[in-house]
Amino acid sequence: MASDAQVPFAVPGVTRPGGRTARTRERVLDAVASLLLDGGYEAVTMDAVAALSGVHRTTVYRRWRDTGSLLADSLDAAREHPWEPPDTGSLLDDLVAINRQIAAALTEEPSITRALVAASFRSPAAAHALRSFWENRYARAAVAIERAVRRGEAVEDIDARTVLIASCAPIFYELVLMRSPMPEDIAERYARVGVAVAAGCAGGR
Amino acid sequence: MASDAQVPFAVPGVTRPGGRTARTRERVLDAVASLLLDGGYEAVTMDAVAALSGVHRTTVYRRWRDTGSLLADSLDAAREHPWEPPDTGSLLDDLVAINRQIAAALTEEPSITRALVAASFRSPAAAHALRSFWENRYARAAVAIERAVRRGEAVEDIDARTVLIASCAPIFYELVLMRSPMPEDIAERYARVGVAVAAGCAGGR
Repeated sequence: MASDAQVPFAVPGVTRPGGRTARTRERVLDAVASLLLDGGYEAVTMDAVAALSGVHRTTVYRRWRDTGSLLADSLDAAREHPWEPPDTGSLLDDLVAINRQIAAALTEEPSITRALVAASFRSPAAAHALRSFWENRYARAAVAIERAVRRGEAVEDIDARTVLIASCAPIFYELVLMRSPMPEDIAERYARVGVAVAAGCAGGR
Repeated sequence: MASDAQVPFAVPGVTRPGGRTARTRERVLDAVASLLLDGGYEAVTMDAVAALSGVHRTTVYRRWRDTGSLLADSLDAAREHPWEPPDTGSLLDDLVAINRQIAAALTEEPSITRALVAASFRSPAAAHALRSFWENRYARAAVAIERAVRRGEAVEDIDARTVLIASCAPIFYELVLMRSPMPEDIAERYARVGVAVAAGCAGGR
């Protein structure tokens, strides 16, 4: 259901090995993703999740309680999924690759990422989990900026998160909020902005 | 109901002079804003709008047809509202002022802008109108970059929209999608990014 590609802002299937509890979670979260993609937030009811997953209603209610918890756990599962930023040898290419991953996750049809962003406007629990998910990705991606500092592409005291937001936020804004037709060069255009910020062109931090 | 401040991304009241048709629109759109702020998308029903505005149901149905049209017309009214970007004499200060207007519109309580963004995930008509609204604001703000070119702060062939998106998108991303606690310097931090882009630090266009 959910894409298996290791895109940083998508929700891949929960495929970790584990016992019965892990398998139950995997079935439930697969059902959540499927219902969300097919029918949006409204389709993710506890009963529909139980029916589609084949997991007993009582178990679903006991472990997740409500739709918000199901959505939040989907994002938590995505956050736990291994992801590392690309290491291409240049900051520009690393940022381009990250932006392309984001753009791919937001424009695939159907897009679980877009569906979860939409759900975050309905559920405070999903909104909170979405933020944790993204902050986790930015924290993991900081290594790309550390490598750039060692290569002399970035100034010493630069704030990695600011570089990443400068590069990534326009992609989210254009594709999620503006719903713009995707300019072909959008990933590269704003990756260059991130590179300029890293080089200190927009001030120290 | 809606703030009267000329914030570029807020929906001010429709206060233009006009005949009975204009006054009817004003009453209906004030009711839409009020319902949206109080109860979100779900509260904006045709019947509730008719009841609150005191405009006859038949008139509301004939002129607007559905909730999506009401939301879209609210954004169209905001788009038609006069707005010009600040002219401070420096690009940095112009961009800081725009970012502060955006941040104020997104963080005021209650925020009609945030409510309309949330509604755009429920209504394609609202999503379309939101995009037109923002594109209109970016087109109007382009004059700030033209002035910067004349002052030598921006390179000749720079794309004004790219400068504006580099400066503004992080504000939207942090406050709408990440729902971050607002860093005090966020308006200035990303305005500096816009200035660097204008100066050609991130490539020609």
